Amino acid sequence: MQLTFLGTGSGVPSKRRNVSSLALSMLQERDEIWLFDCGEATQHQILNSTIKPRKISKIFITHMHGDHIYGLPGLLSSRSFQEGTSPVEIYGPPRLKEFIELSLKVSETRLKYDLIFRSINENILFEDQHIQVSSIRLKHGVPSFGFLIQEKDSVGPLIPEKLKERGIKPGPIYQEIKNNREVSLPDGTNIKRDEVTGDPIPGRKVSILGDTHALDDIVDYIYDSDVLIHEATFIKEDHELAHQYFHSTSEQAANLAKAANVKELILNHVSSRYVWEDLQKELKDIKEVFPNTHYAEDFSTYVIKRRDES
Amino acid sequence: MQLTFLGTGSGVPSKRRNVSSLALSMLQERDEIWLFDCGEATQHQILNSTIKPRKISKIFITHMHGDHIYGLPGLLSSRSFQEGTSPVEIYGPPRLKEFIELSLKVSETRLKYDLIFRSINENILFEDQHIQVSSIRLKHGVPSFGFLIQEKDSVGPLIPEKLKERGIKPGPIYQEIKNNREVSLPDGTNIKRDEVTGDPIPGRKVSILGDTHALDDIVDYIYDSDVLIHEATFIKEDHELAHQYFHSTSEQAANLAKAANVKELILNHVSSRYVWEDLQKELKDIKEVFPNTHYAEDFSTYVIKRRDES
Repeated sequence: MQLTFLGTGSGVPSKRRNVSSLALSMLQERDEIWLFDCGEATQHQILNSTIKPRKISKIFITHMHGDHIYGLPGLLSSRSFQEGTSPVEIYGPPRLKEFIELSLKVSETRLKYDLIFRSINENILFEDQHIQVSSIRLKHGVPSFGFLIQEKDSVGPLIPEKLKERGIKPGPIYQEIKNNREVSLPDGTNIKRDEVTGDPIPGRKVSILGDTHALDDIVDYIYDSDVLIHEATFIKEDHELAHQYFHSTSEQAANLAKAANVKELILNHVSSRYVWEDLQKELKDIKEVFPNTHYAEDFSTYVIKRRDES
Repeated sequence: MQLTFLGTGSGVPSKRRNVSSLALSMLQERDEIWLFDCGEATQHQILNSTIKPRKISKIFITHMHGDHIYGLPGLLSSRSFQEGTSPVEIYGPPRLKEFIELSLKVSETRLKYDLIFRSINENILFEDQHIQVSSIRLKHGVPSFGFLIQEKDSVGPLIPEKLKERGIKPGPIYQEIKNNREVSLPDGTNIKRDEVTGDPIPGRKVSILGDTHALDDIVDYIYDSDVLIHEATFIKEDHELAHQYFHSTSEQAANLAKAANVKELILNHVSSRYVWEDLQKELKDIKEVFPNTHYAEDFSTYVIKRRDES
């Protein structure tokens, strides 16, 4: 799992930060990339990254403000030009469908792949044997959501000593045992996977929040996340502006990260009113509250390690 | 008058060329900038130019393909954030209004200025005492238009000798004479402007065409233009592709420029399939047909000189 920040600014693009978009690459895990928000020129940022648009299989939209959605028609069209043929599922507020369908219609754009819209509820959005995505309502000027990406626990490593005890030699049978709860051996006996593997590897938990007021009632929901991605439109001394515009300060994000016992806090959606020096100073202060905090920059990447590796 | 090419590519953005947009700055003449087409990330290109969004007063859209319109919602929103308060007039195909209004509505964007939509007809779109803009229908997969920006002839220079003969000394009266067809002098006599000024200065003529098949029935319309801006999606050897996709080759554009006796031909909307060397070779050949030809690059600028200066 790797995060690539494609746009870390707020409201309008600046030379340093584009409007919102974040890619979660799971190429090893499922040969897919998921996108979270898609502000204007996200496809342009992708041009300067290693991300292949045809690998984008799901797009999650936190809310309908233009700096989070205006890049969608272009990205979807270009993906079609660039040999994207597999379907794309889009999860977002209900009116997103209307916006995309009209944009494609007036421009007479015919995509070479299927587009599937799914309206967000405060509920499980997607689930398969490996992963679950759910959403939670935040507090913003318009309905805004956070997404929790929760990997399921995976089978622990095979324990060679235990396999030897059962007379099983290394070979394709190892993979077969790992892939199945129970396997019949050539000698007619059955082997249960649990008997020859170590503790399950806990799945990773990634919390990606849209624009929001400071919230403390989501502590349980994001508890123990490997990474929390939280907006920090304002620095702590501008908390009144944050309140007025339904946004958060970095300090509020850090307090949430601490209360929710997350491992790492990455701040994005940063107002262009602050220069680099402002943010360096702010970060130093914020680390007093929550040490493992970073300000995301456009194109910065973060690997989310498996829990047995970290 | 100065042209700034903000996007000179075709269909999808590339690292070298963004999708279509072109600015015509008339800051000296009328303190305004007019935009022609507005593909995605036009506002990002503007960030890297000297253009101030609040000076954009009119936007002309040649046709509804996404690479010519998807940057509009973002540009209009950001102009509002960036203290743009004067009205913007948008000239385009009828469905453009629907696209922009829905984009702004779903994102709950409230502009701080008035937006006025004007549907394109093959006719005069705008006219005041200094300038006239008209449109002509081209041939493309969807309705596509060209725009002719025609400055009106302006009053010739005052001839000091003739003013002296009439006993008029330099002073504010000079400007008054220049601004009015006829002026009453302090001695009670009238002076006609024509009697004391040189030949009128012919207005400039700028032809900006949208995507189109090669056309020869617009020769009269664009005849004698100072500048013709014409798409050249394909090089001449790919004329079959050009035909198939309702586009032009650079050679077809050059033939039109020659037949219409224009002064300068600037090619844009160039397919990213061609590398720089291809275009250099092509340009050399095309100059055999029409010598004063250029390929526009993103951010290239062209000053359109007044006819008494060139």
